[in-house]
Amino acid sequence: MSSSIPSRVKLVDVGPRDGLQNEKSPVPAAVKIGLVHRLQAAGLTEIEVTSFVSPKWVPQMADNVEVMAGIERQPGVRYSVLTPNLKGYEAAVPTRPDEIVVFGSASEAFSQKNINCSIAESIERFAPVVEAALAAGIAVRGAMSCTVGCPYEGEVAPERVAYLAGLMKQIGVQHVGVADTIGVGTPRKVQRAMEATLQHYGIDAVSGHFHDTYGQALANTLASLEMGVWQYDTSVAGLGGCPYAKGATGNVATEDVVYMLHGMGIDTGIDLDKLIDAGAYISDFLGRPSNSRAAKALLTKRLG
Amino acid sequence: MSSSIPSRVKLVDVGPRDGLQNEKSPVPAAVKIGLVHRLQAAGLTEIEVTSFVSPKWVPQMADNVEVMAGIERQPGVRYSVLTPNLKGYEAAVPTRPDEIVVFGSASEAFSQKNINCSIAESIERFAPVVEAALAAGIAVRGAMSCTVGCPYEGEVAPERVAYLAGLMKQIGVQHVGVADTIGVGTPRKVQRAMEATLQHYGIDAVSGHFHDTYGQALANTLASLEMGVWQYDTSVAGLGGCPYAKGATGNVATEDVVYMLHGMGIDTGIDLDKLIDAGAYISDFLGRPSNSRAAKALLTKRLG
Repeated sequence: MSSSIPSRVKLVDVGPRDGLQNEKSPVPAAVKIGLVHRLQAAGLTEIEVTSFVSPKWVPQMADNVEVMAGIERQPGVRYSVLTPNLKGYEAAVPTRPDEIVVFGSASEAFSQKNINCSIAESIERFAPVVEAALAAGIAVRGAMSCTVGCPYEGEVAPERVAYLAGLMKQIGVQHVGVADTIGVGTPRKVQRAMEATLQHYGIDAVSGHFHDTYGQALANTLASLEMGVWQYDTSVAGLGGCPYAKGATGNVATEDVVYMLHGMGIDTGIDLDKLIDAGAYISDFLGRPSNSRAAKALLTKRLG
Repeated sequence: MSSSIPSRVKLVDVGPRDGLQNEKSPVPAAVKIGLVHRLQAAGLTEIEVTSFVSPKWVPQMADNVEVMAGIERQPGVRYSVLTPNLKGYEAAVPTRPDEIVVFGSASEAFSQKNINCSIAESIERFAPVVEAALAAGIAVRGAMSCTVGCPYEGEVAPERVAYLAGLMKQIGVQHVGVADTIGVGTPRKVQRAMEATLQHYGIDAVSGHFHDTYGQALANTLASLEMGVWQYDTSVAGLGGCPYAKGATGNVATEDVVYMLHGMGIDTGIDLDKLIDAGAYISDFLGRPSNSRAAKALLTKRLG
C-alpha cells in the first residue's frame, strides 16, 4: 500500500449542519447542542455547527445564534458555520465562529439550479465575505460541490474542478473540500478531482467530502488517503439524506471512517465508543436507525 | 493509484447459497432457480448455487438436487456447490457441479466451535473429497474463513492464514478465497491476509470474499485490487446476514462492487441494470429492501 498514506487524519464532523439541515421535523437547539457536546467529548476537533442562511430556505437552521451561544466550547476545538453571503456572514460574526464555510459548484448546471447564478458569479459574490473574514482573523474554508458528478450534467470533468479551485484560490479561500455531493464517485474519478484541486492548493489545504449514496465513500477515502489527503468531512450516524435519491444515504458516517482509519493504524484522536454514543443520541432523537454500518454492528455487539 | 490494478475482474455471486442459507423462511426452489437465471442473464459467469450439507443443519438447502436440476445452464457459466464432506460430495456429483467448495478456518477457535475439530483435522477430512473431485474433473475451491478476525479469538494473525493456505495447497485445492467472515477487516489487515495466502497460491488462484458488516468491504476490495487480485465473491442484494451481528449486513453486495469497478473502468462483463433486476427479484420475494446502497440509489433514480 502506498507509503504516502498519512499516519494521522483529522475529521470534521458536519452532522449538526450538513447532516441535520434537511431534516423535516425541527430538531430543538438543545438537541443540536447536546450533539456538539457529545462530538467534542468523543475527540472531534472540528465541528460544522450551523449555517447562517435565511430561515425561509433552511428553517432547520433558524436557531443558529441560540446553538452557537449554547455550546460550552472546548479549547482545541474549532466551530465552523456556513455563510452563504455577506448578510449571513455579518449575522455569524457575533457568534464567534472559528471558521466560515463558503461554497461553489464545479458544475455550471448545478450552480444555476441551486443558487441561480454562474460559478464565476457565485465566487465573485463570496469575495467580500472572504475578505471580511480574513481581516477579522476568521479562517475560511470553501466547499466545492459536484466535483465528480452532477444530478443535472452527469460526469463533471476534472478541468471544471481545477477551474473552481482556481477561483476559490483567487478570492483568498484558505482550504477547500472536494465534495462528491451525489455520491457517484469511484476511486479513480475521485483521485482525478483531487489532482485537479492540488493544482491550486497544497495537500494540507485540501479535504475530502464523500457521500455514501452508492456505498463508495470508504473506497474513495482510501483512494484519497493514498494521495496523502489527511482531512475529511464526515457526519456522525451518516446524518444527511441525499435530496436526489430518496431513502439513500448521504454523508459518509464518521463511525465507518473512524473504524477504517483505526483498523489501518491511523490516529484520529477520536474515541470510537464515545462517537457511537453521540450517533446513538441523535439517532434515538430522530427515531430511526443510524446509517453507519460500523455503529450498527458495534451497538449489536454491545448488546451481546 | 497502483498500476497493478487489473483491467478485468471476475465476480462469483454466492447469493443463492451463502446468501440464502441463513434465511429462516423457506425460499422455494423455483425462486432460487429464478435468481440463478437472472444472475446469469446479468452476465455473472460463476454462481455458487447450493450446498450439499445435511438438511438437519441447513434446512434452507434441502432442495439442492431440485435447484441444480432446474437451472437452464448457459455455456460459459460455472455452477458451484458447497460440499462439507464425502457424503455431501457424493450427493453433489450427479447434479453435475462445475466446481465444489470445501472450507476451513484460519482461526482454531472458530474451527472448534463451528465444526468441532481442529483446522488440521478439518483439512484432512477434506482430502478424499478433493482427490475424488479432481479425479472426476471437477474444479475445487477452498473457502478460508476468519482470515482477519474471529468472533471467538479476535484478531487472526497472517501466519495462521498462511498455515491454512498451505494445508489447502497440500490436499490439492486449486483456488482459495480469503474471507473476512465477520467483516472486521480493514485495508492493511486484508492485504496482510492476502500476502500470507500468496505465499502458497499464485495471484490467479486467489479471490477475496468480504463482508460489509462494518461498511469496509469496498475499501478492502480496492486494497486487494491494488495487489492484483482480480476475483471476488459477492452476493446480489447483499444477501446473507452475519450471524454474529444481528441486523448488520453480511456479504458485500454484488451491485456495490460492480458500481465501483465499472466506475474505475474495470470490465466485469456484468450488466448492472440487469443485476439490479436480479437483486430486486429476490428482495421483493424476501419482502425487505436490498442491502446494496448502489441498488437502492439506482432504483430510486429509475422511479424518477
